[in-house]
Formats: sequence, C-alpha cells, structure tokens
Amino acid sequence: MTEESRKRLEKQIDFILEIDNEKNIFRQTSLTGRIRKENDAEHAWHMAIMTYLLREYANEPFDLVHTMMMCLIHDIVEIDAGDTYAYDEENKKSQKEREEKAADRIFRILPEDQGKELRALFEEFEANETAEAHFAHAMDNFQPLLLNDFNEGGDWQEHQVTRKQVDGRQKGSRIGSELIYEKTKEILDKHEAAGHFRKEDD
Amino acid sequence: MTEESRKRLEKQIDFILEIDNEKNIFRQTSLTGRIRKENDAEHAWHMAIMTYLLREYANEPFDLVHTMMMCLIHDIVEIDAGDTYAYDEENKKSQKEREEKAADRIFRILPEDQGKELRALFEEFEANETAEAHFAHAMDNFQPLLLNDFNEGGDWQEHQVTRKQVDGRQKGSRIGSELIYEKTKEILDKHEAAGHFRKEDD
Repeated sequence: MTEESRKRLEKQIDFILEIDNEKNIFRQTSLTGRIRKENDAEHAWHMAIMTYLLREYANEPFDLVHTMMMCLIHDIVEIDAGDTYAYDEENKKSQKEREEKAADRIFRILPEDQGKELRALFEEFEANETAEAHFAHAMDNFQPLLLNDFNEGGDWQEHQVTRKQVDGRQKGSRIGSELIYEKTKEILDKHEAAGHFRKEDD
Repeated sequence: MTEESRKRLEKQIDFILEIDNEKNIFRQTSLTGRIRKENDAEHAWHMAIMTYLLREYANEPFDLVHTMMMCLIHDIVEIDAGDTYAYDEENKKSQKEREEKAADRIFRILPEDQGKELRALFEEFEANETAEAHFAHAMDNFQPLLLNDFNEGGDWQEHQVTRKQVDGRQKGSRIGSELIYEKTKEILDKHEAAGHFRKEDD
C-alpha cells in the first residue's frame, strides 16, 4: 500500500465509522408491531431496497445506483442535526441551517473527491429537481406510510396529526410516481374513514 | 391502476413489510461505543455504502448496483433462520438448511420474477464465485472488523476468540480486495499485540 492510498483509506474508514452514529438517530416512525421507533440507518436501508423493487412505477426513467446511494445517505446530516419530525413546524424552521452545518462537517471527513460527490448527492435530494430525487422522495414518504398503515395509523394517532398535514407531505410522491401516489391516497382514505386522523376542528 | 398491477404492488408491499423484521435480528457485533449490538438491517446499510465508497480497491471490476443490492438483502433469510455467529461451529452445521428454508418462504412473497431474481442474488452471495460476491464478502468481513477495531476488540474479548479463528474468516476478503485484506491484517496484528485475542493454548 502506498502512503497516498493509506491516507485515502484512513479518511474513508473515518467516514465509515462516523456514519455508524446514524444508527442512534431515532425517527418518529414505529417499526411494524410498534416494538420501538425506527432509526435513520434502518429507514435508509429499507428505502434503497424499495427503490430497487418499485422502480417500475417511476414516472421518469432514473439512474438506479445514483438513487439507491441517495437514499442510503440522505439522512446522514441528522447525526449532528437530529431528526426533524415532518409535522413539527417549529423545528422545521431551523432544519435547513442545522443540516447544512452538519453536511459541512461530515462529508469533509471523506477524501475530497468523494466528499464533494456525496455532498452533491445530498444537495440534489434536498433540491428535489431531478428524476432521481423525485423517486427518492417518493420512497422517503411511502416507507413510513407503509409501516404506519401496518400499525393501524398508530404514529398519526400518537402525534394527533390531521389528514391535511399528511396530505401536505405525501402529495410530493406524485412527482416521483403517479401509481404510488394513487396507492398512498387509498391508504390515507382508509385511515381517515377509520378515524385515525385528528379532525381539523378538534 | 389495473387489477394486475394492484396485485403485483400488493405482493411487493407484503415483502417490504416482511423484511421490516430484519431490524429485530441482532448480530454479535457491537456499534461503535459498544452502546448495543448491531442489527442486520443496519449492517446491510453500512455494507452497501462501503461498497460504493471502497469499490476502487476491488481486485476485479464488478457491477455496482448488483453488489449493493446483494449487500442489502444478503441477511434477509435470518428473519427466520436467526443470526449465526461466525465462530459458533455448532450452530454453523445447521445454518445452510435453516437459511434455504427461510429463502423458500421469504422470497416467494414477492411477484415471481422479482422473487427469483432476489433468491438468485442471495444464492450468488452464498456460492461466492463472482466478482460481485467476492467484493460483497470483503465488505461483510471488513464492516464488523472496523467496528470491533474502534471498540478495542471488545467483541473478540467477549467471545474469547483466537487470532486463528478470526484469520479463518477474514482471509476470505483477499479474493475481493488485496488492499482491504492488507489493512485487515494490520488491524489484526495490532489487536494481537494488545492481547485482545484468546491464546491458542489457554
């Protein structure tokens, strides 16, 4: 091993060890059976497999490895910035700033070329302007929806969320996949009929 | 949505919900800081990112998406078969049979084409005869090694493992990546010098 490749590998290993911390960042979504909350690494793993299995439903053709990697790393900034619940309007105000600061620190651990590449992938997810980002966002919405559907809407009930709030987030899936959005609406209609959302005027 | 695509999507969703159970299969490897043991989904997430970042060190060219997906699903059979510790010789005797039975059940939840595809990917990993499987195995070895190195060999000490036992497993990385195997040996030499392995004649 040359001195140069030794230094490069050390930076890659430092990053690999740093992101181990993502396994300790817990989300508001419960695992099936509501055993415990899910962590970011588990969520990302699930999203990457879903991207592979559900790619046939994408509205636009997309690059598979690019999108799977985007799914795998999209929450890495939460190691420093923490998880921001989709319906926590107060915390969402400072989210962008906290996450950019985290990206500055964490992606710089890598060799420069790879740090820039992964940072760009994260920014692409955030900007949500490419076919890859559109489908990754559909997976980011559909994955917790499926868990929550299995759990009879338990997380929505726990957080007293309205149908309108959930629609506000889930409608973003439509740009990635019309078919997945159609299924999403069916699932939400079922939970609304079952009274799992807080009524607007409660 | 046609009736046919509805049925297909339902099977895919059933599989997606089934594999949520992988988040409850705990390994013998501890997370950095030894906070708790790692689960299979977290391990697979880590391996897929490592495949992407360390691919430059592979001995042979390999297909990236194929290998990442192999990493993501290689432990799904453990939902039924449980985790078999790399140094548990007794349990390893029945491992193959338990895992094949699990594969029969779990991959069949998917639509037939995708079930066959993922089953083949799992069998390819097990057979370890392709460039993709070689690199995935190197990641399967290197990932827990890095965590254990960070944790000052705590898992080896806990399980009273010998250097020879660890070498027996880690030598498999060489066929995937000479450079990663070189780094592996350096790490193991350091831990042997520090007395983190059980001596052969203890």
